[in-house]
Amino acid sequence: MDYKFIEGTVTTPKGFTGAGICAGIKDGNTEKKDVMMIKCDTLCNAAAVYTKNLVKSAAILVTQENLKNGKAQAIVANSGNANTCTANGVEVAQGMSKLCASVLGVDSSDVIVASTGVIGVPMRLEPFEQKLYLMKKEMSKEGGTDCAEAIMTTDTVKKEMAMELTLDGKTVTIGGIAKGSGMIHINMGTMLSFVTTDAAISSEMLESALKEAVEDSFNMVSVDGDTSTNDTLAIMASGLAGNKEITEKNEDYKTFVSALKEACKSLAKQLASDGEGASKLLICNVKGAKSKKDAVGIAKTVIGSSLVKTAMFGSDANWGRILCAIGYSGMDVDITKVKVTFVSEAGELIVCENGAGVGFDEEKAKEVLLEDTITINIELGDGKGEAEAYGCDLTYDYVKINGDYRT
Amino acid sequence: MDYKFIEGTVTTPKGFTGAGICAGIKDGNTEKKDVMMIKCDTLCNAAAVYTKNLVKSAAILVTQENLKNGKAQAIVANSGNANTCTANGVEVAQGMSKLCASVLGVDSSDVIVASTGVIGVPMRLEPFEQKLYLMKKEMSKEGGTDCAEAIMTTDTVKKEMAMELTLDGKTVTIGGIAKGSGMIHINMGTMLSFVTTDAAISSEMLESALKEAVEDSFNMVSVDGDTSTNDTLAIMASGLAGNKEITEKNEDYKTFVSALKEACKSLAKQLASDGEGASKLLICNVKGAKSKKDAVGIAKTVIGSSLVKTAMFGSDANWGRILCAIGYSGMDVDITKVKVTFVSEAGELIVCENGAGVGFDEEKAKEVLLEDTITINIELGDGKGEAEAYGCDLTYDYVKINGDYRT
Repeated sequence: MDYKFIEGTVTTPKGFTGAGICAGIKDGNTEKKDVMMIKCDTLCNAAAVYTKNLVKSAAILVTQENLKNGKAQAIVANSGNANTCTANGVEVAQGMSKLCASVLGVDSSDVIVASTGVIGVPMRLEPFEQKLYLMKKEMSKEGGTDCAEAIMTTDTVKKEMAMELTLDGKTVTIGGIAKGSGMIHINMGTMLSFVTTDAAISSEMLESALKEAVEDSFNMVSVDGDTSTNDTLAIMASGLAGNKEITEKNEDYKTFVSALKEACKSLAKQLASDGEGASKLLICNVKGAKSKKDAVGIAKTVIGSSLVKTAMFGSDANWGRILCAIGYSGMDVDITKVKVTFVSEAGELIVCENGAGVGFDEEKAKEVLLEDTITINIELGDGKGEAEAYGCDLTYDYVKINGDYRT
Repeated sequence: MDYKFIEGTVTTPKGFTGAGICAGIKDGNTEKKDVMMIKCDTLCNAAAVYTKNLVKSAAILVTQENLKNGKAQAIVANSGNANTCTANGVEVAQGMSKLCASVLGVDSSDVIVASTGVIGVPMRLEPFEQKLYLMKKEMSKEGGTDCAEAIMTTDTVKKEMAMELTLDGKTVTIGGIAKGSGMIHINMGTMLSFVTTDAAISSEMLESALKEAVEDSFNMVSVDGDTSTNDTLAIMASGLAGNKEITEKNEDYKTFVSALKEACKSLAKQLASDGEGASKLLICNVKGAKSKKDAVGIAKTVIGSSLVKTAMFGSDANWGRILCAIGYSGMDVDITKVKVTFVSEAGELIVCENGAGVGFDEEKAKEVLLEDTITINIELGDGKGEAEAYGCDLTYDYVKINGDYRT
C-alpha cells in the first residue's frame, strides 16, 4: 500500500482553493449551491476525459479547446442546467470561462468549464455575471466541500476524497470531488469529477495516468445505462509537493497511477452507492475469465442488469438472473464452470456452482443481502482475466426521481 | 392491406386445438393455469427461433432437436419454472415431450417443448404425469385462450391474435399467443410465443418467413434490457387452408410474410404494453437515417433508455433524454438535423428541431403524454433508413414486481 486515505477534499492538495454558492441558475432556486470555482496559485498541468456521447455539452467544447495546451489554473462549474442542445451554448460557456478568469485573475484559456442539469433549456449568463465576483473573497482551502455541494443534482450526499502518497521522498496529496447520480453508465460513469494533486508531473504523463486510472474506476460504474452528454473528469497538478517532475513512465509514475486509480475508485464507488434512488452499493467482482476483456464485459453486464438490480433491492438471492446476464453478455464463457458467491458484512454465501444452483439457507441469504454493500463474486475457472464493476440496486425511488425531474 | 385482424387465437387456424390447466408446477399453486398443450390434426411444417443467451432452458435444447426435420404436431409448455440451470433439465423436458406425445397420440419427436418461470429451481415431472392425461378431453378449438393464460407469469393480460389473408384464392388464417413480460430485450423480445397457420408452406419457406417477420417485430421489443434464457417463438403450418404450397419466394410468399410480420407485430406490441409494471406502450419510429442499421440502433437505444422510460411514466416531455440516447446509440447521425415529435391520441407536438429545443406548450405536452400509447417520432433527415421499436415506461411496479419475484 503506497498511499493512505485522509480527511480532505479537492482543495486539500497544495495550492488549491475553492468556493461554492447559490447563483440561482435554475429559476426559483435561491438556496441550493449551484456554482463553484476552484483555483490554483500556480498554472497547473492538466488533462481531462469526456463523455463518448455524440451529443456534448457546450461546456465540454470550450474545455477541450482550453486544455489543448495541457494547462489550466481554474475550474468553473454549475449545476441546474446542462448547457446542452441549445443555440447559445458555446457563447454562454465561453462567458463562464471569461468571467471566472477575470474574477480569479487567471487567463480565460486556462479555465475548465463544466455544467450539469437539465438538457435543452437555454442557460443564461446573468447569474454568473451577478454572483461570480462575490466568490472571490470566499475562495479558501476549506471551500472544496462547498464545491462538492455545488455540483450536486439529484445526489443525496456530496462525494469527496483525499489521499497521501510518497513520491521521491516527498508527501504528495490527491484530492477530488464528484457528482452523479443518474444517467451514469460505463465509459465515463460519472457526470462531473474534478481531481487535483500537488504532484509534479508533465501534462503528457498526467493525461496518460488519468486514462489508466479511469479504466478501472469511472469506466466500471453503471447506474442506469444512460451515458450522459456532460461527463467530464478533469485533473490538475500543481507540482507544489516538490517531487522530481514525472516525465516518463518510471517507478514514480507507477506509484502515482496506482494511487490515482484508488482515488478514482473511491469517487466511483461513492457515485454508485448514491446512484439515483439507490439503497445499496453493488460490486461485481469477476475472476478466472479467459481475458480481461471477457471479465470486464461480464462484470459490466451483471451490474447493469435491471433484474439483478431489482433482486438486490429486494434482498432476493435470485442468482439465476446473474447466470442469465452472464449468458447474454456476449463474452466467451463456459457456463457449466460458473460459481457465484454473495458477500457482505453479514458473511458469504455460495449460491451457484458449476452453472447450477446449490442448496442454501434462505434465512442466511436474506441476512447477507440486507446489508448496504453487496459483492457478487463470479468465478469462471477459465483463465486469469479479472475485473470489478460498481453499481447500485434499482428502487422505487429511481422511478420517482426520474419520472418528473424536469418540472 | 392483404390481411385483416379477426377475433381468435392460436387455435383458430384449421386443424388446431388446445387446452390449458393448473398442474401445480410451482409448489402451492392450485389455481393459476400453468400447463398448456396445442395439437394439430395433421403433421405440420414447423420452425422456431430462440434466445441468443448462452444460458438456455433445457426445453430449448429438446425443441431444437425435435425441430431438426422441420416437422411438429404438438406443443407442450408450462409456466412457473424455467427448467434452466438445473441438473435434470433435459431429462424433464424430454419427459414432457414423451408425456404430451402419448396423451395426444403423436410422435414424441414432433413435440415442441417450452418452459418459463424461475431459473435454477429443479422442475419435477410429477405434475405433468398426474395432470397431462386429464387434458386430452379438454382439447378444443376454443382452448387457445386457456393456452394463452397458462403461459402467463407476471403478465397481467393474456396476449393473443388472429388474422385472415387470401393466398391462391383461399382464405388462410394465422393465430398466435405470447407471454412476456420482464427479461425482455431486443433479439427475441419475448419469452414464449406460439404462432399457427393453416397455410400450406414448406418447412424451409416457413423458417425463412419467420426469420423475416421476427426482425421487425419481436426483435424490436425491449422491456428491461435483459435477454431471457427461455425465449422461444415457434410456428406450425397445417396446410389445411388448401392453397398451393409455397415452396419458393414468390408473390404468395411475400403476401404471407407481410401478414405474418403484422401478426408478430401485434403480439410484440401486446408484450411491450404489458411489460412488467408498464402503464404505457412506447413506440419509437425513426425515419431518415443513413441506413436501416442506423435506424434500428437508434430506435432500440431510445426505447431502452431508463431515463426516457421514466420520463414517459411521468408524462414529462424531457426530450433532452431522447437526444442523449440518440447520441450514445453508437449510430451514424448528425445531431444538428434531428427532429423529435411526440404523438398520441391527444395530438402531436414537435419538441426538438435541428437538434435544439423548440418552444412548446407544457399543458399540451402533458395532454399528449398522458395517453396510453405514445409514439416518439425521430426524423434524422440524413437518408432513407427506417425502423420502429416497441417498449414501455419504467414504473414503480416494475421495481415492485422484480424486487421479490422468486419468493
